[in-house]
Amino acid sequence: MPSEDPPGSFVSGPLLLHEAALFTDLYELTMAAVYFRRHMHEPATFSLFVRRLPPDRAFLIAAGLEDVLEFLRTFRFSQQAIARLRSLSRFQSDFLDFLENLSFTGDVHAMAEGTVLFADEPLLEVTAPMIEAQIMETALINFCHCQMLITSKAVRSVIAARGRPIAEFGLRRTPGTDAGMKSARSAFIAGCELTSNVLAGTEWAIPLTGTMAHSYVTAFPREADAFDAFAESFPDSTVLLLDSYDTIAAARKAVDVARRLAAQGHRLAGVRLDSGDLVTLSRKVRDILDAAGFSDVQVVVSGGLDELAVEQLLSAGAPIDAFGIGTRLNVSADAPYLDMVYKLVSYAGRDVLKLSEGKETWVGSKAVYRRRGSDGRFEGDLLALRDEPVPDGFEKSLLEPVMRAGHLLRPHPPLSQIREHSAAQVASLPEELKKLRAAGEYPVRISGGLRGRQERAKEETERTERA
Amino acid sequence: MPSEDPPGSFVSGPLLLHEAALFTDLYELTMAAVYFRRHMHEPATFSLFVRRLPPDRAFLIAAGLEDVLEFLRTFRFSQQAIARLRSLSRFQSDFLDFLENLSFTGDVHAMAEGTVLFADEPLLEVTAPMIEAQIMETALINFCHCQMLITSKAVRSVIAARGRPIAEFGLRRTPGTDAGMKSARSAFIAGCELTSNVLAGTEWAIPLTGTMAHSYVTAFPREADAFDAFAESFPDSTVLLLDSYDTIAAARKAVDVARRLAAQGHRLAGVRLDSGDLVTLSRKVRDILDAAGFSDVQVVVSGGLDELAVEQLLSAGAPIDAFGIGTRLNVSADAPYLDMVYKLVSYAGRDVLKLSEGKETWVGSKAVYRRRGSDGRFEGDLLALRDEPVPDGFEKSLLEPVMRAGHLLRPHPPLSQIREHSAAQVASLPEELKKLRAAGEYPVRISGGLRGRQERAKEETERTERA
Repeated sequence: MPSEDPPGSFVSGPLLLHEAALFTDLYELTMAAVYFRRHMHEPATFSLFVRRLPPDRAFLIAAGLEDVLEFLRTFRFSQQAIARLRSLSRFQSDFLDFLENLSFTGDVHAMAEGTVLFADEPLLEVTAPMIEAQIMETALINFCHCQMLITSKAVRSVIAARGRPIAEFGLRRTPGTDAGMKSARSAFIAGCELTSNVLAGTEWAIPLTGTMAHSYVTAFPREADAFDAFAESFPDSTVLLLDSYDTIAAARKAVDVARRLAAQGHRLAGVRLDSGDLVTLSRKVRDILDAAGFSDVQVVVSGGLDELAVEQLLSAGAPIDAFGIGTRLNVSADAPYLDMVYKLVSYAGRDVLKLSEGKETWVGSKAVYRRRGSDGRFEGDLLALRDEPVPDGFEKSLLEPVMRAGHLLRPHPPLSQIREHSAAQVASLPEELKKLRAAGEYPVRISGGLRGRQERAKEETERTERA
Repeated sequence: MPSEDPPGSFVSGPLLLHEAALFTDLYELTMAAVYFRRHMHEPATFSLFVRRLPPDRAFLIAAGLEDVLEFLRTFRFSQQAIARLRSLSRFQSDFLDFLENLSFTGDVHAMAEGTVLFADEPLLEVTAPMIEAQIMETALINFCHCQMLITSKAVRSVIAARGRPIAEFGLRRTPGTDAGMKSARSAFIAGCELTSNVLAGTEWAIPLTGTMAHSYVTAFPREADAFDAFAESFPDSTVLLLDSYDTIAAARKAVDVARRLAAQGHRLAGVRLDSGDLVTLSRKVRDILDAAGFSDVQVVVSGGLDELAVEQLLSAGAPIDAFGIGTRLNVSADAPYLDMVYKLVSYAGRDVLKLSEGKETWVGSKAVYRRRGSDGRFEGDLLALRDEPVPDGFEKSLLEPVMRAGHLLRPHPPLSQIREHSAAQVASLPEELKKLRAAGEYPVRISGGLRGRQERAKEETERTERA
């Protein structure tokens, strides 16, 4: 057992470092082998972006950059990795020797984590010698896709909860261990206040929450015994789970516990409802607590919730103080993937694009400019070429240099700062875009410069391919 | 950088071993703290099962057991883990000392990976001193949920493809790194033949596939140059991607490549279509290849496919030899989670259950018996108490002892064996259950013994709680 983590392995994975370079699709390496054979080492620029927003999403939140940069910064093919590739008998020795000496020496422009973005806007652009830029594709999409998916889902619950705290509860049904960790981080960025995930909570200082499951209550001969035992051990942080047998009867037992705790100078923190008609039950339980003088005991609900359920509960006036939201948030159940791609947009100074139906992408290194109205709200974006000047009335490009020649240009911002940035960004969105259903469309225009370059690249490609 | 993996860390995660015990919900530990305070160390039995099948699923395939057993076998709270828990200021020192000396000493009964199972049937049951059994909940569900979800999704594409090979292509959009690895393994168990995931392929000897992306084609000034360069480097394994510009024109260039390769004693392996009307394009491309005498060049299709698309393509008579299926398979897009739970079914010799609406679970340690008809097909299952004898006409229980007192009872079966077992299981299913839509329901009966025990436990619980 190692005495400590290999540096970087946790955040970028938790892949083990010496395996990380093999976390890729085989075609990245077969393409690289041909580039190597043909001496194609000129600079290439790739854009990472989402082609189309999923249904009922009018915006996304950027996430995953820290993992991307740590991956690029530490990228190496270890000897073990080379040995595995050699065992495939597909690659020639000189290419494998080349890989063994490869590191990432390129530049990255990126949006800060927590930034609001829209379809076609690059989250990041990588410029590097062709092979270095190409073979990062799989990992970079994997890191950003997962975290943007969950951040962009979780913010919907935060919006629906209208200021009430949300605890991310979904670790058990998040696909795999890494997504479990990234879910806790992503949900926190999006504005969730707590997580049940002990490893994530202690890793990133995300406040932890959790008290008891039904198994706990049923392990005791009597529910009241289970409640008492918990309050004895955790007199200041007990949240009693009420629905193991009869929620209303359990609420009365909760009052008994609250009285005993109060007599000892403590306070019952809350009660939790995890099944049944949550509108009716939360009202009845609230009434029972209030009637006994415990209006400060919180009512927490959970159990298969998502943002639509949260909105319905609050619209119905259910007296709920906090939500525990798990599975459907962590798997982004209504939209379980993003159409995220990493596309070559220039190589060796030539703009490139494919012409596949419905999949045309914008060429060249780009900038994303954003304009605010007099109320401070976002009014519209402009997708432009990076070398176009900042247009009048717009802020500087959201795509900023973050890595040069393989070196980080600044330390990673702390998670709290990313979370604040995300909250400020979401607060600046037009209200229309924050609706959970049938969301409006934010205006993203294309600059004249970019449009011209795109047309020229298209004409050139069509001319060459027709020849 | 470590010179090799810590043992077990890859398969069980790839969480790093010393962190693994913290991969849990906080409430597992708060409950444990109370059990510790109250000296509740009697044996508990927990059942891991799926409460309801998702829409359009008539069966599931068991997966994840190897990870579960490795996790339990190596389970320890490291000193670093204890230090993190201490930093929360929630737990008393004597409890943390207890955790630091804890390992898993219990028994596990489980279904072999690859076994077909249904709602309410335990995938596994854990019997151990209460704390040991309780705190495994989060990790055990996480490991099995992810792998069963993907295995049970992937088999639908295997069925739809009617014997044509499927390559799992979804690494980039699988949530996180661990799910990326587990997806490759799960898809292979389900009958997919290839993966694009280099790390998974080299880890588990899953055949790898992958040739070129659109970025590769567009990096060359002319598509024909891109094709030639690839064929030169990989003369026996080239699959040309045809849809970067004009699929039909590209098919004619593929014929040129095939001719040159043939003249050198090689063979063009295939062509790939990734966009457009795949029925029409596959026919036209097949015709072009056949007319040139290259009927042995395979037509591979990909691009946002799932099992329904595969079925439609083949029903329309599209001449497709192989499929590349990614995102929608790996996230199980139509059913992105399972209602999988880990429920306490007995403690200290007492059957326990909760009475929450719609969430009643079967008490006690159980057996799952299956009966085959004269044609060898599965006819029906019987969920029974473990100590009931095997009923006439049924095979021995699918839940077999796999761990005793914390020790493995047998080595993990090789992946190839799990895959063969899964194929045999699926072949034994009634055809009705293998339909992609509106699937039938498989009969799972409850034994008289179990029903009686359940009724007694319910009466006892109601009597106690009413008292």
